[in-house]
Amino acid sequence: MRTTICRHGTIPTRPLLVSVRPGASIAPRTDYRPSSSSANRAPTIFSGIQPTGVPHLGNYLGALRQWVKLQQDADPQTKLFFSIVDLHALTVPQDPDQLRRWRTEAFATLLAVGLDPKRSTIFYQSAVPAHTELMWILSTVASMGYLSRMTQWKSKLQLPEDTTLDHSAARAQLRLGLFSYPVLQAADILVHRATHVPVGEDQKQHLEFSRYTANSFNHIYGPIFPIPEAVISPAKRVMSLKEPTVKMSKSHTDERSRILLTDDPATIYKKVKVALTDSEATITYDPVQRPGVSNLIEILSHFEERPCETIVREYGSASLRTLKEEVAKQIAHHLREIREGYAALVANPASLDTIAQRGAQAAQGQTGETMQRVRAAVGL
Amino acid sequence: MRTTICRHGTIPTRPLLVSVRPGASIAPRTDYRPSSSSANRAPTIFSGIQPTGVPHLGNYLGALRQWVKLQQDADPQTKLFFSIVDLHALTVPQDPDQLRRWRTEAFATLLAVGLDPKRSTIFYQSAVPAHTELMWILSTVASMGYLSRMTQWKSKLQLPEDTTLDHSAARAQLRLGLFSYPVLQAADILVHRATHVPVGEDQKQHLEFSRYTANSFNHIYGPIFPIPEAVISPAKRVMSLKEPTVKMSKSHTDERSRILLTDDPATIYKKVKVALTDSEATITYDPVQRPGVSNLIEILSHFEERPCETIVREYGSASLRTLKEEVAKQIAHHLREIREGYAALVANPASLDTIAQRGAQAAQGQTGETMQRVRAAVGL
Repeated sequence: MRTTICRHGTIPTRPLLVSVRPGASIAPRTDYRPSSSSANRAPTIFSGIQPTGVPHLGNYLGALRQWVKLQQDADPQTKLFFSIVDLHALTVPQDPDQLRRWRTEAFATLLAVGLDPKRSTIFYQSAVPAHTELMWILSTVASMGYLSRMTQWKSKLQLPEDTTLDHSAARAQLRLGLFSYPVLQAADILVHRATHVPVGEDQKQHLEFSRYTANSFNHIYGPIFPIPEAVISPAKRVMSLKEPTVKMSKSHTDERSRILLTDDPATIYKKVKVALTDSEATITYDPVQRPGVSNLIEILSHFEERPCETIVREYGSASLRTLKEEVAKQIAHHLREIREGYAALVANPASLDTIAQRGAQAAQGQTGETMQRVRAAVGL
Repeated sequence: MRTTICRHGTIPTRPLLVSVRPGASIAPRTDYRPSSSSANRAPTIFSGIQPTGVPHLGNYLGALRQWVKLQQDADPQTKLFFSIVDLHALTVPQDPDQLRRWRTEAFATLLAVGLDPKRSTIFYQSAVPAHTELMWILSTVASMGYLSRMTQWKSKLQLPEDTTLDHSAARAQLRLGLFSYPVLQAADILVHRATHVPVGEDQKQHLEFSRYTANSFNHIYGPIFPIPEAVISPAKRVMSLKEPTVKMSKSHTDERSRILLTDDPATIYKKVKVALTDSEATITYDPVQRPGVSNLIEILSHFEERPCETIVREYGSASLRTLKEEVAKQIAHHLREIREGYAALVANPASLDTIAQRGAQAAQGQTGETMQRVRAAVGL
């Protein structure tokens, strides 16, 4: 079933999967879910999230909710790995105490949204040394030319997209870690021999790099790594409540621009109430001319899994205040379980630690097997 | 005691040490050996050698013999770490089976030359995951500009020294591993919190980079790493027997150009007998005009620890054949114990494995302590 809705794509009943030939650019394929019959070996799903504290509504609708759906839909043989990629976080300046807190908050959130440590392997990247071991080995085949054309290091340093490594600002500011980020990301995926990787649009370039690097390695050393395929979910961007032309973001200076998964109903009501809209009194869906009200309609659409058009028909004659109240109510309703689960989890740090340790052990089992093959292949 | 001899420097009774201020270029300081009184903590010596099979006479006189002397001279509190840096070997193409064999051969040689696993920690780099873990963390502070100015990646790709990363050949051929080699080397040193690093002249640039990177890290995260100092031994270059204007090297096509530490006396006699000299019948020391005969005089000088001038006075009226016989005899004599020790070691691979495992465990103990401090400092 595909229903075209809103600007952000489709609401499918299942995650969409992208299947690509090595070297080909990514083009979506629909109506597919990973199953053991789709490849010679059991499908393995890997995805990671950076620890930036409690995720917001955009993180949830854009990625985390999809992870939970993948967990629900995957057949029993499918392996699932979800990681707090704390080593990646170090590629930009961090306050150590804050990072330590953010790691725990992110880990607790993964559990609170519904990832089940009995079904999925949930772990801190830095607790599994094979990630950096494989990163080094992959770096011996990773092309500097390809890495220098990647856009992320340029955007993080606010440099133009055509910046080369000879640019004086690049020479002065760029650190090796930020530049080689895609190689660690490739290692994250390949060390679990992942076959499927849920990614957002903005990470497609990185997955392409992982596929290229896996191919380069296999070409030299034999078929060690499956070539991972992207699982692209229909983009569910949630825009800032205070600046609805940009994505909801952790880094926006105004805290009221985002709703955290742990916000209580009163906070949610307050933030939605002061969400920036426009002076028109009617409810219409027009993301370009009326980004604020359209964002509210989309949030409802995401939660209710109904097309925006249906929502507009329903609320067309209501006041903006009524719409906002409904949006706040739906958000508060859908986040209640997450919020309560999160509170219970962080109240018991010892139990969180135990879950993290078990996750790390399970991940080490999987990566140990991979590294044994890799070491044999390269001659270590 | 300093006696000026030959072209290659001095014969000291102790290793020389280089003490430098952060950022200053290296200038030798004489008559010093690491002792616990020289710093707040026990001196720690680290050095590594790439596995390229059985080392030759040049490796021995240039590095390995110095390691053994450091082991003998170090006071009891000094910690010593010597590593087969097999992960570095992957930065250039390798035949996996050959690399596997070379690793074992290099490990056995370290023991055969006199490194004592009861006194020194001897281990394979790839058996201690903290090397690559710290490498990643250091890479988040390591300057791309500095790395691009290093010369090794250019020389390995046979590119001119002024090549930049925008050079088309660099873009096409360079792999991230070769480019970031100095950061793994910094991690090798810093993960053991080494205070002293025996290096050859050609590695001074890399140690300078390690010092710079340690300072950068300490500046951001606090004083975690001692700034390592170079232990420069008087250069003891041994030249190729077949092309005495270049260093004795593993990669020379003519096997008779080098003497392996495992060569038997007959092989040594044969190689020295056909060593390239010149048509003059006399014995004089003149490295520029008479590189072949001068190289033989220097080899005698290194083994006998006597100045070249003394040797020339002794053999001045002898024939070249007599000199060659004496050189072959001295080499065979000095390598006998190493050769026999090596044969016994490789005859018992299980015992070698046990020694390597113990070495890895001891190294993991040291690096575990470092990584605990590093993780706390960065917020993991």
